[in-house]
Amino acid sequence: MSKSEPLVLIVSGPSGSGKSTLVEKILQLPGTMLSVSCTTRMPRKTESEGKWYNFVSEPEFQQMVERGDFLEYAQVFGKNWYGTPRNSLNQAQAQKKDLVLEIDVQGALQVKQKLPGAVAVFVLPPSRSELEHRIRARGQDSEDEIRRRLERARQEMLNYSSYDFAIINDDLERAGTEVQAIALGSRCRVPRNEERIREILNSFGG
Amino acid sequence: MSKSEPLVLIVSGPSGSGKSTLVEKILQLPGTMLSVSCTTRMPRKTESEGKWYNFVSEPEFQQMVERGDFLEYAQVFGKNWYGTPRNSLNQAQAQKKDLVLEIDVQGALQVKQKLPGAVAVFVLPPSRSELEHRIRARGQDSEDEIRRRLERARQEMLNYSSYDFAIINDDLERAGTEVQAIALGSRCRVPRNEERIREILNSFGG
Repeated sequence: MSKSEPLVLIVSGPSGSGKSTLVEKILQLPGTMLSVSCTTRMPRKTESEGKWYNFVSEPEFQQMVERGDFLEYAQVFGKNWYGTPRNSLNQAQAQKKDLVLEIDVQGALQVKQKLPGAVAVFVLPPSRSELEHRIRARGQDSEDEIRRRLERARQEMLNYSSYDFAIINDDLERAGTEVQAIALGSRCRVPRNEERIREILNSFGG
Repeated sequence: MSKSEPLVLIVSGPSGSGKSTLVEKILQLPGTMLSVSCTTRMPRKTESEGKWYNFVSEPEFQQMVERGDFLEYAQVFGKNWYGTPRNSLNQAQAQKKDLVLEIDVQGALQVKQKLPGAVAVFVLPPSRSELEHRIRARGQDSEDEIRRRLERARQEMLNYSSYDFAIINDDLERAGTEVQAIALGSRCRVPRNEERIREILNSFGG
């Protein structure tokens, strides 16, 4: 692994697990940046273009797929498309920052395959009842949508063992500390520091 | 891996790398405890029995070896013996704490073989000249001893790739944050949280 290859941190978790808040916790650390995904879904009222998503039409998205512009992409609920632009990696490399991807399980598996050094974190709600409570409290979803989200949460969580780390988000303070620790600690993995270690060994005569 | 199996954190590094200070940083985290090693070497003036070491005679040490009392043991400089009592693991398990081992490269390799889930951290000085400076500043060693320590440091560092993490100790503040992050982050590894994850999955109907 080259020193210049950015550390890639994948964060996944069911809708309502609090993964976006934990991603923001990582982004509070200096030397980190978010990969802005492309999506064909409609923006929510609170979302501004280019901060969390680049909103594109379906033909635009398919064109990007054909050009090979995506590191990973997936269709969610058999409806909307989401993709991580390959370009994010280059930006992170140029700025010498860690790259944070907030993506779903399908995307995470694709990225882990292409970038085996990527570190994957799965965020879990403490229980089904707590997740249902959070989704209802948001007040954005119909009963049908709530049922679909809970079933999708269950299906996503069945893939937990493909991840390196699991954070059980029952206490945001602790969960935030944990996710920051995972990010900081991952910078110290031996393969990420080989060049520096070799320099030190050279100063000892190799 | 059972939930009740303690997280074992191995910290190694050449004499003068600052590993003892970084071990103290880990021990500042709640839920951690130090494994007290046995050694046949003479106590330094600053060392009290049972805090950093249990000082034993060579016949006592050999008896412990024959009884299989050690998780790992090794002879250092072909002179003094050091060993980690197996009992430390039981204590950590009973107290539900992470167990910190400050041991050398030979010992670390033995522990990693017996406990593949152990997390191994190697602490490096930033350069040969800085390490020599630190050893001289301590003022405890003869010229011969200093030469031996520097050569031993080089030999130890050649084993860096057997470790999971490397910390380059050029700034104690940063190095302390890093080693604490490694310890906290390691608690979140998926295999350490399988029981809790299965409970959550069960609440979703499996």
